Amino acid sequence: MDQQPGRLMKAEIAEQPAMLRRIVTDGGADIASVAAEIGRRRHRFVLLAARGTSDHAALYAKYLVEVRLGLPAGLVSPSSMTVYGARPRLTDVLFLAVSQSGGSPDLIDSLTAARECGATTVAVTNNAASALARAAEFSVDVRAGAELAVAATKTYTAELLALYLLLSPLAESGTGALGAEVAALADAADATLALEPGVVEAAARYRFANRLVTTARGFSYPTAREAALKLMETSYLGAQAFSGADLLHGPMAMIDAELPVIAVVTPGPGGQAMVPVLERLRQREADLLVVGGVPESQQGMPVRTLPVVTSGVPEQLQPILEILPLQLLAMHVALERGGDPDAPRGLSKVTETW
Amino acid sequence: MDQQPGRLMKAEIAEQPAMLRRIVTDGGADIASVAAEIGRRRHRFVLLAARGTSDHAALYAKYLVEVRLGLPAGLVSPSSMTVYGARPRLTDVLFLAVSQSGGSPDLIDSLTAARECGATTVAVTNNAASALARAAEFSVDVRAGAELAVAATKTYTAELLALYLLLSPLAESGTGALGAEVAALADAADATLALEPGVVEAAARYRFANRLVTTARGFSYPTAREAALKLMETSYLGAQAFSGADLLHGPMAMIDAELPVIAVVTPGPGGQAMVPVLERLRQREADLLVVGGVPESQQGMPVRTLPVVTSGVPEQLQPILEILPLQLLAMHVALERGGDPDAPRGLSKVTETW
Repeated sequence: MDQQPGRLMKAEIAEQPAMLRRIVTDGGADIASVAAEIGRRRHRFVLLAARGTSDHAALYAKYLVEVRLGLPAGLVSPSSMTVYGARPRLTDVLFLAVSQSGGSPDLIDSLTAARECGATTVAVTNNAASALARAAEFSVDVRAGAELAVAATKTYTAELLALYLLLSPLAESGTGALGAEVAALADAADATLALEPGVVEAAARYRFANRLVTTARGFSYPTAREAALKLMETSYLGAQAFSGADLLHGPMAMIDAELPVIAVVTPGPGGQAMVPVLERLRQREADLLVVGGVPESQQGMPVRTLPVVTSGVPEQLQPILEILPLQLLAMHVALERGGDPDAPRGLSKVTETW
Repeated sequence: MDQQPGRLMKAEIAEQPAMLRRIVTDGGADIASVAAEIGRRRHRFVLLAARGTSDHAALYAKYLVEVRLGLPAGLVSPSSMTVYGARPRLTDVLFLAVSQSGGSPDLIDSLTAARECGATTVAVTNNAASALARAAEFSVDVRAGAELAVAATKTYTAELLALYLLLSPLAESGTGALGAEVAALADAADATLALEPGVVEAAARYRFANRLVTTARGFSYPTAREAALKLMETSYLGAQAFSGADLLHGPMAMIDAELPVIAVVTPGPGGQAMVPVLERLRQREADLLVVGGVPESQQGMPVRTLPVVTSGVPEQLQPILEILPLQLLAMHVALERGGDPDAPRGLSKVTETW
C-alpha cells in the first residue's frame, strides 16, 4: 500500500464544515417534512435505537427530546426484542433508529418489531436505500456522502445535525432562525478545525499512554463517549467515558497523575455543571486536558486546553463542534504510534450484530 | 488501623445468601403491596433514575420492564431535569429511582420534578428514612442492612431482588412460585460463594494488569457493568464494560493477547447471544475468563471459567448470582495489590452530585 496512513480519515474530518452547510441546503426541506409528519402524531414517548458511533448520536437526540420537546425518552436495548422476543405496546411512541450504514440486522429487526408494536418508526441513516430505511415508515438521509474510513467521523456530525433539524420543528415553528444557526455552526467548524496544530501537540503527549478517561455532562456527554470510542478504535487506547456525575460515583478512585483525563467543557449549563468535577480532578492530580475551556469561575485553574470555537452557536449544537478536535486527536495519536487510523485492526466498516 | 484490609467487604459479600432469604420473608409483603398499587395504574412507560452501582440495578430493571412487563423504558439522564430544567409530560409514567443511600441530591431533585410532572414515583433504597424515600409517593426498602464498605456489594444484589419482586406481580399473579424461586436463588448463592478458592487463583493472574474488559448481553449486561465498576473502585483497574454487541462495533480493535477480557455467560438467551462474541474474542487471541460457562455448542473452546451455580434459577434472577464471583474477584485483586478494598482512595460512601 503506497497510501498515506490516515488519508481517508483526514479528508473526511476536513469535509465536515461544507457537509454541514449542504445538509441544510440540500436536505433541510426533506427533514422538515418528516418532522412535520411526525409532529402531527403527538407522540408521548421517544425510543432511540443505535450501536457504536450512532449510539452516541442517539444519546445526543435523547437530550434534545427531553430538553427541547419535553418528552420522556429511552435508549432501546435491542436484545430485549431480538434476543428475548419482547413485544412492548408502543402506541404513541416515536421509535428513531440511527445507523450510518442502515445495515445492522439487530437494528432492522428492532425497528421492524417496533413498527409491528404500533410505534411510528423513523430511520436516520447515511444510506437512503438501506434495509433499515426501507423497513421504516419514515426515513431521513443524513447526506454525509460516502464514508470510506473505518472510523466514522463525518457521518457522526451529519447524524447530530440531522437529528437536531428533525427534533427542532416539533417544538418550534419557522426555519429561518435554524438556517442562521447552521451557518454560524459551519463557520465555527471551519475555525475549530484550523486549530489542528494544537491538537498535533496534544497527541504527541499521549504517545505512550495506554489508558485515558473522557468526561462531560449534559449535551457534551455524548461527545465524551464518542471521543473515547474514536481513541479505542484508531489508537487502541483503553479510553473510558463517564458523565461527570457518574465519575464521582466510584471511578474517581482510579484517577491519579498517571491517568490522562480529557474533559469536554463548553459554554452553557452542561459546562457549568462540570465545575465540581474539575475541582475533584484537580484534587486527585489528574493529567487534565480541557476541550473547550474552563468556565469563568475557574479561570485560575492551570490546565491545558484544546479550544473549540463556538461563537453564535447554541449549546445544543456545540456537540457538533466539540468532537472535531477529538476526531483529530484520535487520528494524530494513531499516527504518532505508527498506526493507520483508516484501517484499524479487527474491524470492518459495517458491523453486523444480532 | 489494625483492621484486616477488606474485612467489611468480605463480610458483606458473605451475608448475601441470608439477606436474599430475608428480603422475601421480611419484605416480600411490603413490596407486593407497592407492586399491587402501581399495577392498578396501568402505566405506559417506565423511567429509571440512578447513579453508580444502583444504575446497574436500574439497567437490570429496564430489561425486566421491557421483557416481563412489555413496556417501553428509559434510563433517565438526570441532568435533563436538574441542569437544563426540563419538565417533561409524565402522565402514565412510572418513575423508579434506585439509590443505596437515598441521599443523592440529583436523584431527589429528578424524582421530585418527575412527581410534579405527573409520574408515579417509587424510591427503591436501603434507607427507608432517606430524603429520596420521603420525596417519593411509594417507597421500597431493599433491606440489605447497614453497608459499611465503600464498595457496594449486598445493596446491589438486594436492589436486584427487590426490583425483581416489584416488577413481577405486575405481570403475574400469585407469589408461591416466587418464594420457591428465591429459595433456589439463595441456595445457589451459597453454592457459588463456596467456589471462592477458584476466584483467589484467578485474581492472582490480574496482579499486574492495568486494563480489563468485561462483556455480556441481555440480563447479564448489567453484571458486566457492575463488575467493571467494582474493579475500578477497589483495584483502580481501567475496567471497561461493553454489551457483546457493542464490543463488535469498534472496541474490538483494542483487543489483543495483552488485554484481559471477562465474559459473563450463563444459561439462557443472553448467554447464547454471546457465542459470536466469544468466537471473535478467540480470533483476536484475547485472554478470556468466562464467568458462568461456555454454551454447549462451544464446549471445545479452551477457556478458563469461574463457575456460577444456577440450578433451578431462571435467567432473569441469574444476575444476582453472576455478580458474586466478580465481587470476590474485585476484592481479591485489590488485596493481591496490597490495597484495602474497604477504603478506596478518593471515595466516600455517599456521593453527592447535582
